[in-house]
Amino acid sequence: MFISFEGTEGVGKTTLIRRIYEYLEQQNKDIVLTREPGGTPMAEQIRSLLLSVNHEEKMCNDTELLLMYAARAQHLDLVVIPALNAGKTVLCDRFTDASFAYQCAGRGLSQEKLVLLNENFVTRMPDFTFWLDAPIEIGMTRARERGALDRFEQEKVTFFEKVRTGYATLAERHPERIKRLDATQTADQVFEQALAYLKSA
Amino acid sequence: MFISFEGTEGVGKTTLIRRIYEYLEQQNKDIVLTREPGGTPMAEQIRSLLLSVNHEEKMCNDTELLLMYAARAQHLDLVVIPALNAGKTVLCDRFTDASFAYQCAGRGLSQEKLVLLNENFVTRMPDFTFWLDAPIEIGMTRARERGALDRFEQEKVTFFEKVRTGYATLAERHPERIKRLDATQTADQVFEQALAYLKSA
Repeated sequence: MFISFEGTEGVGKTTLIRRIYEYLEQQNKDIVLTREPGGTPMAEQIRSLLLSVNHEEKMCNDTELLLMYAARAQHLDLVVIPALNAGKTVLCDRFTDASFAYQCAGRGLSQEKLVLLNENFVTRMPDFTFWLDAPIEIGMTRARERGALDRFEQEKVTFFEKVRTGYATLAERHPERIKRLDATQTADQVFEQALAYLKSA
Repeated sequence: MFISFEGTEGVGKTTLIRRIYEYLEQQNKDIVLTREPGGTPMAEQIRSLLLSVNHEEKMCNDTELLLMYAARAQHLDLVVIPALNAGKTVLCDRFTDASFAYQCAGRGLSQEKLVLLNENFVTRMPDFTFWLDAPIEIGMTRARERGALDRFEQEKVTFFEKVRTGYATLAERHPERIKRLDATQTADQVFEQALAYLKSA
């Protein structure tokens, strides 16, 4: 089973992933915990390029999108697919939905480009996706408390509002795969809600 | 005018580009000398990823292709297009033909993927392309004399034979744009041949 976790900054993805990891471990599952962009040393180098703040040179929208998919191709081929083939459960912090939400809904890049990258370079989609949803200000406050903000975290609230709307669009489009979790609840409540979905899956 | 230079390792691209640069300078042209992958600080970082030898992690073919196009998108948007719009002549060491020759003909990646990346992410093609052609062994000897080989240069002769065949296919397909130069000639002869093409263009 391939499970991805989505949401804007500071909504509690890391906490939920840890809780689900511990739960699955107790069930004696073999679990691979990974993230995007990244997940292999090479893909993590691409992640650094994507996240680093560069005041000298603006990263173009197409460049950002293609770097995301370059990291994804490497991650899928070397980590996700082999783990799934070996019968493991993959927990992935962000996946293609994030590209739609951030690059298309957020930056205004054409969906057509994303669709063709998905169709030609994404060989496996998650079976299950948890979307942690909360008003942007709540998450941004948490993200700011964590320290220095990366290139994405430095975006304005209006950008994240668009990203959130992007996630809402996807959740409506793929109700069988994407489950919205109310991230304004306590961590315990979010986990219980996620667990209920998992058990019914 | 946008001119690209293509060919396998050690065929004399750098020398020809310098000679054409000097010639155009004497004609009082404004010239931008650039290369792919690379051409901006950020695209050069992507180039480093692409060229560096990594014994720990193999780079997947899709990753390589997408990184090439990420660097290309950045380079086109920040260097090539603005220079052409300002009426400058752009001399570019390698461009999309190299992706076809190396990734498709060389690595066996599907042309379909390349075509869709070209159609969706390449906003400007060269007006003129010089393909420096020579038997692989000649170029490889020169490349080896230059010192440590990068990830591409470390490939076997059979790989470069395929790349060369890829360039031949392209030259046949686009005779109006791609001009083959016999790179077994002296540097002077190659330059004169290129100049004759340029003057007739």
